[in-house]
Amino acid sequence: METRPRVVLVGAGFGGLAAARKLRRAPVSVLLIDKNNFHTFQPLLYQVATAGLEPSEIAHAVRGIFHSQKNFDFRLGEVTGIDLAARTLSLTTGEPVSWEFLILAPGATNNDFGIPGVAEHAIFLKTLQDALALRNHVIAQFEAANVDPSLIEQGALNFVLIGGGATGVEMAGALIELIGQVLRRDYPHLPVDLAKIILVERSPELLTPFHPKSQRHALAVLRERGVDVRLNESIVQASAEGVKLGSGLEIRSRSVIWTAGIKAMPFAELLGVTPGRGGRLAVEPDLSLPGHPEVFVIGDLAAALDKEGKPLAQVAQVAIQGGHHAARQIANRIAGRPTVPFRYFDPGVMATIGRNAAVAEFPIGLRFTGRIGWLMWLFLHLMTLVGFRNRLSVFLNWTWSYFTWDRSARLILEPEEKKEPPPAAAPV
Amino acid sequence: METRPRVVLVGAGFGGLAAARKLRRAPVSVLLIDKNNFHTFQPLLYQVATAGLEPSEIAHAVRGIFHSQKNFDFRLGEVTGIDLAARTLSLTTGEPVSWEFLILAPGATNNDFGIPGVAEHAIFLKTLQDALALRNHVIAQFEAANVDPSLIEQGALNFVLIGGGATGVEMAGALIELIGQVLRRDYPHLPVDLAKIILVERSPELLTPFHPKSQRHALAVLRERGVDVRLNESIVQASAEGVKLGSGLEIRSRSVIWTAGIKAMPFAELLGVTPGRGGRLAVEPDLSLPGHPEVFVIGDLAAALDKEGKPLAQVAQVAIQGGHHAARQIANRIAGRPTVPFRYFDPGVMATIGRNAAVAEFPIGLRFTGRIGWLMWLFLHLMTLVGFRNRLSVFLNWTWSYFTWDRSARLILEPEEKKEPPPAAAPV
Repeated sequence: METRPRVVLVGAGFGGLAAARKLRRAPVSVLLIDKNNFHTFQPLLYQVATAGLEPSEIAHAVRGIFHSQKNFDFRLGEVTGIDLAARTLSLTTGEPVSWEFLILAPGATNNDFGIPGVAEHAIFLKTLQDALALRNHVIAQFEAANVDPSLIEQGALNFVLIGGGATGVEMAGALIELIGQVLRRDYPHLPVDLAKIILVERSPELLTPFHPKSQRHALAVLRERGVDVRLNESIVQASAEGVKLGSGLEIRSRSVIWTAGIKAMPFAELLGVTPGRGGRLAVEPDLSLPGHPEVFVIGDLAAALDKEGKPLAQVAQVAIQGGHHAARQIANRIAGRPTVPFRYFDPGVMATIGRNAAVAEFPIGLRFTGRIGWLMWLFLHLMTLVGFRNRLSVFLNWTWSYFTWDRSARLILEPEEKKEPPPAAAPV
Repeated sequence: METRPRVVLVGAGFGGLAAARKLRRAPVSVLLIDKNNFHTFQPLLYQVATAGLEPSEIAHAVRGIFHSQKNFDFRLGEVTGIDLAARTLSLTTGEPVSWEFLILAPGATNNDFGIPGVAEHAIFLKTLQDALALRNHVIAQFEAANVDPSLIEQGALNFVLIGGGATGVEMAGALIELIGQVLRRDYPHLPVDLAKIILVERSPELLTPFHPKSQRHALAVLRERGVDVRLNESIVQASAEGVKLGSGLEIRSRSVIWTAGIKAMPFAELLGVTPGRGGRLAVEPDLSLPGHPEVFVIGDLAAALDKEGKPLAQVAQVAIQGGHHAARQIANRIAGRPTVPFRYFDPGVMATIGRNAAVAEFPIGLRFTGRIGWLMWLFLHLMTLVGFRNRLSVFLNWTWSYFTWDRSARLILEPEEKKEPPPAAAPV
């Protein structure tokens, strides 16, 4: 019965959602595939990790987002193989899927750059599960130190963040607030002043892509609030006891948090293509896969180039605009029109450093720091959170935290180690 | 330095919190022990299981609840031994703890009554982790059936609830709303009408402790909304494929949800005492342990008797009033006054059957059903939820759901099967 060409979309991140929405009125049927049944608003993962927000406030069920889109369907599953010649995908769930057009937007995962011990001992912050595990872990350290204060000497209250990009800076700022304002009240008998947050950054400044003025502001605010920022410093080894740094310094810690780098999901292997740096795929100017005009690659997986021929940053805006672009090119192809090259419009960058402090940079040189930057950050993040309900809930949560310095979400909620619930009807 | 007698409280449920609060101005130091760092508002677990509320809306960090209580401290850990003669408790964490007074309020766990297969195959609903696992499980069934509709014949969309008490009735009502209103829209290609909810109750009526009029109302509403209620029916076996009932009927299902009974936590063993029915402990009229006037037993663990000499129900109100009573008796003992017997005041019972339908019964024969009962249920549950923030958040969540038939929380958020995060500094 179905005569509309099928567009298969891999990945329910910013790029995948943007493409699926843009195809709303196109004469196609859309099938979005993801290994989770929800979209994660990754820029706020650090808020879940620091007990400021709940998972459902930064994640939304994919089927809910597309309730009213008639040509949309969703499949829960992970891609295990891609046959470009036969135009089929195989999945961990159910039958293989065929396509007329394919958009690959699987995003990225953590990159440990092969540093010994990082894969085994560091804590990552890339998924909602990561964020919840990190939250449990941080609070469990305080409970453990409260029972046995000698653990503090063993580094139980030392938190080492590797990587001074936006995620590292935001995490450091949120963590020092959680500890200094909330956990200090929770543990009146614990010498919470002994807790340390060490932020390690390899380059001579934080927030590399930002203007030097913003970089200096972020550094000054973090240091003033008590974060031990170490620039020009790198990690050479992680272990169960702590980290060894390039300068020779060793820090005892049970909490080495990795925000230093990502690599594209391993789709180059599935496609039988040699990837570029960080696992990214070279694409044509219209974002299609070389030799396969019916396949588009967007977001963190694509090494799309800017005007100067450098790869675009792996950020949400590039994925969103790439998703819109790929959707439009598919409409062009169906209508018999030629495709056009992708042009990225850079709307600016921002990062929050904590309460009343953020840096925000917009085109034509507009820059804001401090409270104004922070209010802009709040407003833009609220506006872009998926779904009205999420926005309202996050707004209330943030308002509450702002005035009370309280966090509702500091529950250690680990899955019980007991019998498994009955298996789902199929391996999902 | 510490000269105040120490009251050790085991369990951060309704009874433990009530006792700890009541001891606020008593000349004692209070140490509350629980295996979780949060209190769970158990009457609303079914709302978390049906994606209506988030964990942090029905749970609250214990340390947060007692921020302003100077004589309060908390210890995360599980009790592994009690030495009544030496007045010490041993725990899974840290050093043993000694007491001058002990209040045992550990609550109850599931009782499978030895029915074959229940322990292995049924899904329980007694902890926050249970509720999240059940939510994941229900939605995973729909995703699996959507990929492979043949699973429906194997019972993937059959949900069998065992036990027609308040929890079973509330769960059945919430589940049929989740499926009929939310999941029906989420899965437009799935024959959601084939989903079945079967509620199995051994006695001839639902909601045994309620008035017959309330019982009939609950039965009529559930049946009208599509729940297949089976009275005078029992379960004789559970398996991975489904259940076998006393009548000989077999129902294929991967979701057998157990709300049929509880038993007290196994503290009789720890105390070396022979327990009564359901693992409950006989207590003196003042709720102290026979032969140990310095030890009080409250809530689900205590077999306190009513005026007719029958054990009181294992419900929140009995635990709360028992907690207040035990705290007052400790104050009496310290002041050299005799203790007084516990007298339970029954404020009534209520259960919600779903949107616009509940039954509520109050003293002197006041009874309400339907929308008025439901509004009373809403109001009283909101008022008793711990913490202003939780109340506001739950109110908004419920208002949103009421007008939109939407649920924000339907994420399948299972812990990833990957490397464990670094261990907490001590086994907690």
